[in-house]
Amino acid sequence: MKNPLDTAGDGLPADTLTLLRERTRAFADARDWEQYHTPKNLAMALSVEVAELAEHFQWLKTGAPQELDDKAREGIRHELADVLLYLVQLADRSGVDLRAAALEKMALNAVKYPAPGA
Amino acid sequence: MKNPLDTAGDGLPADTLTLLRERTRAFADARDWEQYHTPKNLAMALSVEVAELAEHFQWLKTGAPQELDDKAREGIRHELADVLLYLVQLADRSGVDLRAAALEKMALNAVKYPAPGA
Amino acid sequence: MKNPLDTAGDGLPADTLTLLRERTRAFADARDWEQYHTPKNLAMALSVEVAELAEHFQWLKTGAPQELDDKAREGIRHELADVLLYLVQLADRSGVDLRAAALEKMALNAVKYPAPGA
Amino acid sequence: MKNPLDTAGDGLPADTLTLLRERTRAFADARDWEQYHTPKNLAMALSVEVAELAEHFQWLKTGAPQELDDKAREGIRHELADVLLYLVQLADRSGVDLRAAALEKMALNAVKYPAPGA
Repeated sequence: MKNPLDTAGDGLPADTLTLLRERTRAFADARDWEQYHTPKNLAMALSVEVAELAEHFQWLKTGAPQELDDKAREGIRHELADVLLYLVQLADRSGVDLRAAALEKMALNAVKYPAPGA
Repeated sequence: MKNPLDTAGDGLPADTLTLLRERTRAFADARDWEQYHTPKNLAMALSVEVAELAEHFQWLKTGAPQELDDKAREGIRHELADVLLYLVQLADRSGVDLRAAALEKMALNAVKYPAPGA
Repeated sequence: MKNPLDTAGDGLPADTLTLLRERTRAFADARDWEQYHTPKNLAMALSVEVAELAEHFQWLKTGAPQELDDKAREGIRHELADVLLYLVQLADRSGVDLRAAALEKMALNAVKYPAPGA
Repeated sequence: MKNPLDTAGDGLPADTLTLLRERTRAFADARDWEQYHTPKNLAMALSVEVAELAEHFQWLKTGAPQELDDKAREGIRHELADVLLYLVQLADRSGVDLRAAALEKMALNAVKYPAPGA
């Protein structure tokens, strides 16, 4: 019987952010990396990963898929993953629930930028 | 009866990344913002948000919670949310499944950085 | 009689990088800021200033002068200055002669990217 | 006879920023790169170079010279140069006199952050 909590259908428990939080904790713990993973250092590492992502787009017109070759697409995929992994770790070390924070921010944005006709 | 898919317990469907993808799409669509949301522009916006996050930590020793006041903590929470929201949108525009990409990257990292004793 | 070393014609000694190095040293010293100005912190501050600069361009087509209003132009001018000021301080703290390093890098670039027909 | 304008003693005319502006213009022109060098793209490239610089410091305590090996020191020197080269080009494309802008910004900073006892 399919597990109703396996919403992504990959045999792993939901929610992605919770799953990645647990996995990155175990990964850092097994390597004794917590000592390096201060919020400040994670924020700096996050900046570096975002720049590696941006590098793929810097000389392009828009970065639409047809402007990218397979190597760039693969690089972008990996850099997007790196950004998410550092983001999850920084939120964890800062005691922030990313899901709740993002939903709250979207609610604030809806007030700040009202939709035309809304 | 509690919906078994409501894994976060906030009455919204699981998975956070899927939920945010749908919501950011609808948000941009209602404001006719897709024209600005090229992958290149989203990558640039993501860099800017990450820097706003890093700004909170730049002169601190480690950025541990006790070095932060309430205003900084609130700012960090909002910036973490902004980073996630742009990340989800950039992945969506680039056709990347963030969950699959992150799990794949963690598997690659486990090979690249073997745990001692593993 | 005009001072031949006053090459910028503003009554101050040449070279801009030397002038700014001396002035930023005195500025930080008068405020007891050297304790915060580690190379790591200055690199982080530099990233933040560059992002504030990039923010002016993120939703524009090319950032050409005609796409900018007076407020954006003034902001860009100030952010360019901030980037230079942190760059000079980081080079100073790292013991790097920026002029020599830049000329050396241009020579390396000329080999790496030969001009067509050269 | 020594040229009084050769204030750096390397046989090249003063001022570094003017010298680099002329050289980067000629370099881009010889390679037909102006088409890529929009202010927006240069701002993005500048962000990427600053992140490559920051990467050297991300896991260190302070980035003081004794924490760095020769390879890191060499890398930092090259990245500092790259940042300066893109900064000069972006200022040039934006019509900003970097020297005047930096001196003006320092004057504003002196008002914003008065020195104790001053």
